[in-house]
Amino acid sequence: MDTKVALDTIWTMVTAMLVFFMNLGFACVESGFARQKNCVNILSKNFIVFAVSSVAFWFLGWGLMFGDGNGWLGMKGLFMLHGADNSPATGDAYQGVYGAIAWATVPFLAKFFFQLVFAGTAATIVSGAVAERIKYLSFIVFSFVLVGIIYPVTGHWIWGGGWLAKMGMWDFAGSTVVHSVGGWAALAGILVLGPRFGKYNENGGVNPIPGHNLSLATIGCFVLWLGWFGFNPGSTMAAAVNDISRIAITTNSAAAAAILSATITSWVILGKPDIGMTLNGCLAGLVAITAPCAYVSVESSLIIGLIAGVLVVLAVTFFDKIKIDDPVGALSVHLVNGVFGTLAVGLFAQDLFMPNTTGNGLFFGGGTKLLMAQLTGVVAVAAYVFIIALAAWLVIKAVMGVRVSLAEELEGLDIGEHGNTAYPEFTIRKQSYTFVGHTAGAGGRD
Amino acid sequence: MDTKVALDTIWTMVTAMLVFFMNLGFACVESGFARQKNCVNILSKNFIVFAVSSVAFWFLGWGLMFGDGNGWLGMKGLFMLHGADNSPATGDAYQGVYGAIAWATVPFLAKFFFQLVFAGTAATIVSGAVAERIKYLSFIVFSFVLVGIIYPVTGHWIWGGGWLAKMGMWDFAGSTVVHSVGGWAALAGILVLGPRFGKYNENGGVNPIPGHNLSLATIGCFVLWLGWFGFNPGSTMAAAVNDISRIAITTNSAAAAAILSATITSWVILGKPDIGMTLNGCLAGLVAITAPCAYVSVESSLIIGLIAGVLVVLAVTFFDKIKIDDPVGALSVHLVNGVFGTLAVGLFAQDLFMPNTTGNGLFFGGGTKLLMAQLTGVVAVAAYVFIIALAAWLVIKAVMGVRVSLAEELEGLDIGEHGNTAYPEFTIRKQSYTFVGHTAGAGGRD
Amino acid sequence: MDTKVALDTIWTMVTAMLVFFMNLGFACVESGFARQKNCVNILSKNFIVFAVSSVAFWFLGWGLMFGDGNGWLGMKGLFMLHGADNSPATGDAYQGVYGAIAWATVPFLAKFFFQLVFAGTAATIVSGAVAERIKYLSFIVFSFVLVGIIYPVTGHWIWGGGWLAKMGMWDFAGSTVVHSVGGWAALAGILVLGPRFGKYNENGGVNPIPGHNLSLATIGCFVLWLGWFGFNPGSTMAAAVNDISRIAITTNSAAAAAILSATITSWVILGKPDIGMTLNGCLAGLVAITAPCAYVSVESSLIIGLIAGVLVVLAVTFFDKIKIDDPVGALSVHLVNGVFGTLAVGLFAQDLFMPNTTGNGLFFGGGTKLLMAQLTGVVAVAAYVFIIALAAWLVIKAVMGVRVSLAEELEGLDIGEHGNTAYPEFTIRKQSYTFVGHTAGAGGRD
Repeated sequence: MDTKVALDTIWTMVTAMLVFFMNLGFACVESGFARQKNCVNILSKNFIVFAVSSVAFWFLGWGLMFGDGNGWLGMKGLFMLHGADNSPATGDAYQGVYGAIAWATVPFLAKFFFQLVFAGTAATIVSGAVAERIKYLSFIVFSFVLVGIIYPVTGHWIWGGGWLAKMGMWDFAGSTVVHSVGGWAALAGILVLGPRFGKYNENGGVNPIPGHNLSLATIGCFVLWLGWFGFNPGSTMAAAVNDISRIAITTNSAAAAAILSATITSWVILGKPDIGMTLNGCLAGLVAITAPCAYVSVESSLIIGLIAGVLVVLAVTFFDKIKIDDPVGALSVHLVNGVFGTLAVGLFAQDLFMPNTTGNGLFFGGGTKLLMAQLTGVVAVAAYVFIIALAAWLVIKAVMGVRVSLAEELEGLDIGEHGNTAYPEFTIRKQSYTFVGHTAGAGGRD
Repeated sequence: MDTKVALDTIWTMVTAMLVFFMNLGFACVESGFARQKNCVNILSKNFIVFAVSSVAFWFLGWGLMFGDGNGWLGMKGLFMLHGADNSPATGDAYQGVYGAIAWATVPFLAKFFFQLVFAGTAATIVSGAVAERIKYLSFIVFSFVLVGIIYPVTGHWIWGGGWLAKMGMWDFAGSTVVHSVGGWAALAGILVLGPRFGKYNENGGVNPIPGHNLSLATIGCFVLWLGWFGFNPGSTMAAAVNDISRIAITTNSAAAAAILSATITSWVILGKPDIGMTLNGCLAGLVAITAPCAYVSVESSLIIGLIAGVLVVLAVTFFDKIKIDDPVGALSVHLVNGVFGTLAVGLFAQDLFMPNTTGNGLFFGGGTKLLMAQLTGVVAVAAYVFIIALAAWLVIKAVMGVRVSLAEELEGLDIGEHGNTAYPEFTIRKQSYTFVGHTAGAGGRD
Repeated sequence: MDTKVALDTIWTMVTAMLVFFMNLGFACVESGFARQKNCVNILSKNFIVFAVSSVAFWFLGWGLMFGDGNGWLGMKGLFMLHGADNSPATGDAYQGVYGAIAWATVPFLAKFFFQLVFAGTAATIVSGAVAERIKYLSFIVFSFVLVGIIYPVTGHWIWGGGWLAKMGMWDFAGSTVVHSVGGWAALAGILVLGPRFGKYNENGGVNPIPGHNLSLATIGCFVLWLGWFGFNPGSTMAAAVNDISRIAITTNSAAAAAILSATITSWVILGKPDIGMTLNGCLAGLVAITAPCAYVSVESSLIIGLIAGVLVVLAVTFFDKIKIDDPVGALSVHLVNGVFGTLAVGLFAQDLFMPNTTGNGLFFGGGTKLLMAQLTGVVAVAAYVFIIALAAWLVIKAVMGVRVSLAEELEGLDIGEHGNTAYPEFTIRKQSYTFVGHTAGAGGRD
């Protein structure tokens, strides 16, 4: 037995399981922040999406992302993991067609497992943004396209040895590769779908739609916080003791700082410490630290978190002002802070933590070179993902429709799409639509 | 420090913890799929059952299962783990009375921990099937008997070096040892108990009884899915890097395929993608892949999952037709797919994955030899467990009764058995009993 | 790569994550055992408290606890982890100012991560005891003081090489360091706050206030039980294979025995097996075994658990008799059993399990020396923590108040403190206050 391979494999497998568990986190956050009449639908979406992702990433996604090819696409070993590969051999000993991830000293299917749970995360991000009005089947089809085709292409650019990697862009655990990709795909979906009935009126009024179960939402955020200890420290795919310890602390520190700054910001702006803001603040900090977690100091991680927590509160308000209806705050969390976190690498990175990777960022004497590479990555990914995702949504709309009927939306998607209700024995209050002139709530509550 | 022992122990301990966590999964699935008036009772059953299992397996179960003895029973070191054992010594260096598990390179109490969480799983399977009408104390007594006496005997046959093991039956992680054993014991319990009041009427009509909290049920299924990454990959009880990676992927692939096939099947048969079927589809795929997970290819695991997902939907309908009242679909998941998964070893096994174990199954040129051994195991375990469990249920019935009074059943077991209500501040709707001519729902909903 | 460092770091990181996850457990237990009108407030407290703890322990707590200093306080490297440290070097090779924890063969930030999640636990214990009437901001301020100043001082005495450690007091995983410290701080808070409105009347009557969601409370207990497999076996901070295996089993056995004895005790005393008692019994057993887990046999752990389960039921009744209003039973679990568990080391310890540590306890021929050391520790910690915490609570009360207005308490803290409601679509029953002459319920229900 090769000891290093065993150590690295244990670490990779356990952290992959934690990332898998984030599916539960997203299911709870998204259903908790939405109305009970759509609860079964959201749970169903979040449950089936990892099944869809598993098939899509196995069938094509893995090959497109990690297959040897050019700067734009993987070209070899595309389908069903059938390329040659002698992992865990590395370096000169490696013989296979997935060279971009041949640095990881773990068996082939451990690599696939770890990358699969990341791919699945991108799809769950979309789920919350399009909630409460999307057709079940249309979401399933889009998820297959996202994980099978859209996600792996930009993934190839950055993690698959593609042109952005060669240009010097760094995204350690996926602020861009996972989170902002999910965010752009979600934005395209929101634009194609339009806002939920009763969310905005003609006078610019916003109707706060509170989440039906904040216990559920809080459970979800704790599970996601736990899962991120897999997401970030696990992205070493190796038992690199100093790195995984440091990354766990930068990850946690950013989350802690963002929780505090989002809570304070909502306290100041909204008058009270809204729990939705506290919870989304946590996720914002975690998304923002995802790209820089390995490259920055604990102090920098606290600053990144502080900024992320403020950003998410402002973003929630902003998206409501421009009538982008995102029921759970997914854009504010994953898109805005995915972009911010990617740029934060260019600002806060220090060469000493991972020598010969990022070099120093702007605040540590490295000039703007790294920042520009990060910015290029952000813009390129935005353009590609948004356009392709928009096209996919429009094709789906033309072929099978994307939005349920108004009658179904009013009654709730649980009955319409599934024939179930989430809490059939509980008495539910009739819903009212009260428009107010300003945003009164928070992520999941406005 | 012996590195291999340390690696294997870390892996065994972490995966055992994941399997322990499945107790939460079962608690959520079973209570979510049942009515709120019985929620406290189900939660109590699922909580105390692992305490009961811990004592029963420590007191006697371990010794019966792994003690040196004959083909039928362990005979040495029976009580309270008091047999000699110098683990983690293995092979010729091993000196002790638990020789059947001396292959595992981990300390004695790590072996006990891992096997204990498996034994506990068998008892939780029964819990759901007998829900909503069983006396609390009677369930506790049966669980003690199951884990202390029934489970370890068939466990000895297959994992304890007994006659089925010698005959060439293979059950890697327990489709039979754990799941169908729990299933047969549950079936015996259902037959002794009879259906819940109002479930069936004389004209063959079935009254769908929906679960009270599908958020809870969904949380439970995610937790079980996570736990299975301990159940199957952990059953190596060693950091065998290629095996644990492959088993994680076959496990996940079967779950994914079964989710999709159960959802499609329910969409076709019931008209809508019932969430209960989606969730039970997942569990069905996981149960079915449990025996073959180490011996089959990823492609085979997808096929096994596809079949399991269809089977579970048909089985739910079937059990209702013959008036076997299983509130959560435990038989359809654990019994039917436990049997199917065990037979699937005989069909899909390939010698190349674990040389010198199963050999090839029928579909890979191995003929029917392996399949016949598997079938023999299925039949023998069925006969033994069903008969002994039935006897145990009947003795309990005679001594202390098994079913609560009709008045208590109507009011709910929470008040009658525990003096609690699960949600005392929420307004609950009055229940109605509407009989329909055909099965209208799904696992947990019909 | 140093293999031992890698093994120890993986174990330490994974178990730290499990302990982190206990934050979810506490959030669920505490909110489930309280009323729905205060649910958002409790969830918010339990969510933000780990953020507060993370900042407080990073800023000062770590340095006070583990910095080199005298028997009373750490004096070096106090702030922001800025002391010198060349971990994972140990023994003579260690060069740094955190000598008391230099025995652990893991990187510096892994030590910090593991100790941080423990410090956070102490703060969450307070949260439940002061629930349903404390101001949000006052709780946040107290938590900062507790984790930054109070907890690390007694932690230094016992785990930081201070005077109690030198005197021969042993607390393996923190029955005193974590649990009774949290308990004493909670007791001080309860005394400053007073009981909830309507809990007691002038005639000595007690009004049972049932928890609003026992599904939530049960989820929480399962998560805590899982987390304790990190808490106790992880406290080796090393992949010490025999120790971690044994500790996992003593931990689980104590929990199992306490579940059974608490259930039986409540059955006998209250007439029915109250689920609140079953759940708190589990936690009581886990708290009690936390100090002795490494030093006692499996048989002793069962006895310790049996006693803990009885103690917790009696304590719940006792605290109600003296009108100490603890909504979730935190004192009965963490304070009473934290004390008991610490003393249990003096009774049940056996030198053979960890040679050259505790020596034998009273029941194993060691005389009263160890027991006296344990008792001294219990008394000293009680005096210090209770007095300092009381002072802190009184200062906070004078400066900003600690208790919400009666109007807010009646309406619920969710609206008053946060402007949210946990379940806005569900119909809630009007609350009634019925005083009974005796304690009718259990932890979380009385």
